[in-house]
Amino acid sequence: MEIAVTRVGQAGTRPKDEDLGFGTAFTDHMFVMDYSTDKGWHDPRIEPFAPVTLSPAAMVFHYGQAIFEGLKAYKTPEKKVQLFRARDNFDRLNRSARGLCIPEVDIDFVMDALKQLLKLEKDWIPETLGTSLYIRPFIIATDPFLGVRSSFTFKFFIILCSVGAYYAGGLAPVKIWVSKDHVRAVPGGVGEFKTAGNYAASLNAGEIAKKQGYAQVLWLDALERKYVEEVGAMNIFFVIDDELVTPNLTGSILPGITRFSVIDLAKKWGMPVSERKISMDEVLDAHASGRLKEVFGSGTAAVISPVGEICYGDRVLHIGDGNPGPVAMKFYQALTSIQYGTAKDTENWIEPVV
Amino acid sequence: MEIAVTRVGQAGTRPKDEDLGFGTAFTDHMFVMDYSTDKGWHDPRIEPFAPVTLSPAAMVFHYGQAIFEGLKAYKTPEKKVQLFRARDNFDRLNRSARGLCIPEVDIDFVMDALKQLLKLEKDWIPETLGTSLYIRPFIIATDPFLGVRSSFTFKFFIILCSVGAYYAGGLAPVKIWVSKDHVRAVPGGVGEFKTAGNYAASLNAGEIAKKQGYAQVLWLDALERKYVEEVGAMNIFFVIDDELVTPNLTGSILPGITRFSVIDLAKKWGMPVSERKISMDEVLDAHASGRLKEVFGSGTAAVISPVGEICYGDRVLHIGDGNPGPVAMKFYQALTSIQYGTAKDTENWIEPVV
Ligand SMILES: Cc1ncc(COP(=O)(O)O)c(C=O)c1O
Ligand SMILES: Cc1ncc(COP(=O)(O)O)c(C=O)c1O
Repeated sequence: MEIAVTRVGQAGTRPKDEDLGFGTAFTDHMFVMDYSTDKGWHDPRIEPFAPVTLSPAAMVFHYGQAIFEGLKAYKTPEKKVQLFRARDNFDRLNRSARGLCIPEVDIDFVMDALKQLLKLEKDWIPETLGTSLYIRPFIIATDPFLGVRSSFTFKFFIILCSVGAYYAGGLAPVKIWVSKDHVRAVPGGVGEFKTAGNYAASLNAGEIAKKQGYAQVLWLDALERKYVEEVGAMNIFFVIDDELVTPNLTGSILPGITRFSVIDLAKKWGMPVSERKISMDEVLDAHASGRLKEVFGSGTAAVISPVGEICYGDRVLHIGDGNPGPVAMKFYQALTSIQYGTAKDTENWIEPVV
Repeated sequence: MEIAVTRVGQAGTRPKDEDLGFGTAFTDHMFVMDYSTDKGWHDPRIEPFAPVTLSPAAMVFHYGQAIFEGLKAYKTPEKKVQLFRARDNFDRLNRSARGLCIPEVDIDFVMDALKQLLKLEKDWIPETLGTSLYIRPFIIATDPFLGVRSSFTFKFFIILCSVGAYYAGGLAPVKIWVSKDHVRAVPGGVGEFKTAGNYAASLNAGEIAKKQGYAQVLWLDALERKYVEEVGAMNIFFVIDDELVTPNLTGSILPGITRFSVIDLAKKWGMPVSERKISMDEVLDAHASGRLKEVFGSGTAAVISPVGEICYGDRVLHIGDGNPGPVAMKFYQALTSIQYGTAKDTENWIEPVV
C-alpha cells in the first residue's frame, strides 16, 4: 500500500526541552488508516495532526473496543533517530487486537509507516538526554451502532508528542500504595492486553493513592488479593538478597517490553532472576529481615523507577536510604545508554530510523 | 441552566416500523453538554444529531473513561409518550460516574433535558406494540492528554434511535452459552458500573458463543468460576420449583432496572424470590431432578427473554418445551403493559412526557 502524504501548511514549534512535560506537545502530523470488513486495512495516509470526526454512536464511545501502544524514538548524540524494540510493541498491539476482536495490522507495513512519519517529524525529537518523542499507536472501533458486538470498521492512528526528561533532577525514588479494595484485572479478563478499559478501571484507586501522597498504585491479584501484580503503568521488580524477583505473567499482568529487557540483561550479567508469584507477606518478611534490598518499576515512560516507600494498609515500608539503589541504577544506565545510542546495541534492540 | 435549541433544517424520516432494527435509526437531534473543572457541567444544548469532533489524543480513545445508560420511551395507544423508571437510570449513571471518577450530573436537570428532547422528537417514536425509542445517555472523557489520570473535561450526550420490536414473531426462547475461560468482571473491579470497558471485555467470549450457535454468554463469577452472574446485557432468573432465584448483587453484576422491577412484581404477587448465590452445579441438579421450570433474562432491550437452552462445557440443558414459560410470560405481560400504558401504573414507574 502506498502512503499518501499531506503536509501541514505551517509547521508548529516544539517547546524548549526544559518546558516539555508528558503527553501534550503533539507534532504536526499523524499516521491514519481505516479498516472495513470488505477492504481490510486501507487508505493509509500521513496527514496534519487534527481532530477526528466520529458519529456520537461510534462504538468506541460506548463499548470501549480500543487498544493502544506506547514506545519512544530517541535522538543520539550524533543526531541519529532510533527506536527501541519497536517491533515488540507492534507484536503486542496484535496480541491486544486478538484479545479484543480487533483486526491485526501488518507489522512490516506499520513499521515502515512509523519510520516515514518519524522522518517527517524528526525536528520534534528533542535532544537533551532523557527527553524523547513518545509514540502512541492506537486502534478504535468506529461503527455507528448501539448493539453490543465487535465493530466492522476501525481506525488506526499513530500520534506523536515530544516529551521531557522523566527525571529532571536525576533518578528519584517514588512512593507507591497497595490497593486492597480495588482490583485491576483478573485471569480470564483483559488485563494482559493494552486496552482502554483497564486504565479506566484503575482511576479510582489512583485517586485514592494520590490523595494520600502516593504516586502510583501497586495492584494485587484479584483472586487471593495476596500476590503482587504490577504498579500503575509499570511492571515491578524486587531485589531480595542478590536475586531479582518479578511476578510471572499470569494473564492479568501487562507483558512490559522494559520488563523483558531487564530480565534479558540480568540473565546476560549472570544475575539470578526469578519470575514467580510474590506475595505481600513475602515482601514484608524480606523487608523485616533486611533482605529486601531494592524495589523498582519498569516501563517505557520512566524506563526504571526506584521505589522508596510502599504503603500496605497501616504498614509503611521504607526501602533503601532515599537514593536509587545500585541495581536499579545499573539497569537504568544500561537501558538508557542503548536507547540514546551511547552504548553498543549488543542485544539487537535498536531499529535505526535516520 | 437554559437549554439552547438549534433545530435541523430538514427533518429526517423514520423507517417503517417493520423495517426498524436496533441501534441504527438515529433521530434528528441530540442533547449535549460539556464539563470542565472550573465551570462544572455547562453549555447544555439540543442540536442536530451530527458527528463529534475530538482530538485524537482525547482520553476516551486511550483510557476508556466512559459510562452510559440505556432506557426507552414508549408510545401509548392514546399516543402519549412515557418513560419507564428513567430516574433510576440517571441514578445508576451517577453511580457509574462515581465508580469511574466522572463528575455526576444533576438528575432533575437531565430529566428535564431528556423530556425536552423527546418532545421535539416525538414523531420518531414508533407506535406498533413492541417498538420504542431507545435512549442512550453517555459521558466521555475529552482531555487531549496521554498521561493516565482522570480527565478534567467531559462531554455528556443523549442520543436517540427508533427501535423495532425485539420479538417480531412473539416471545422466542434464546440459547445461551456458559463461558468457562473468559471472565467479565471481578469484585473490586468495575463490573457493577455501566462503563465501556466491560463490554469490550465481553466481545471475545461473545464471538465464541456466536460461532457455536448461541445468542448470548452466561458469565460465571471470577473467583470460583462456579456461580452464575448475568447473561450478555441482561440479568438472569431461574424458576426452581415455585421460587424465583436470581444472583445477588455482589459488586461484579450490573444492577439492572428490569431486574429490580421483576423482583418488585414477584414480591407484590406473593411469589417467593431469593437473591442469592446460585452455582451452575445447582442449576444442573435442579434441571436433572425436573425442578428447574424456567430460566429467563431481564433487560431494557428485550424486557424478558426466555432461555430455552444452556450450554455448559459438554452439557446441554434444554429448558421447557421450546415455548416461553408461564412465569416469563407473566412478567413480560405485566412489564410491557405498564411500559406501553395499557395497564395501570400501580408501582409509580411511569414518567409522562407528552
Ligand atoms: C499496565 C502497564 N503495565 C506495564 C507497563 C510497562 O510496559 P512497557 O515496559 O512495555 O512500557 C505499561 C506500559 O507501558 C502498562 O500500561
Ligand atoms: C451487563 C448488563 N447486565 C444487565 C443489564 C440489564 O439492565 P437493565 O434492566 O437496567 O436494562 C444490562 C443492560 O442494560 C447490561 O448491560
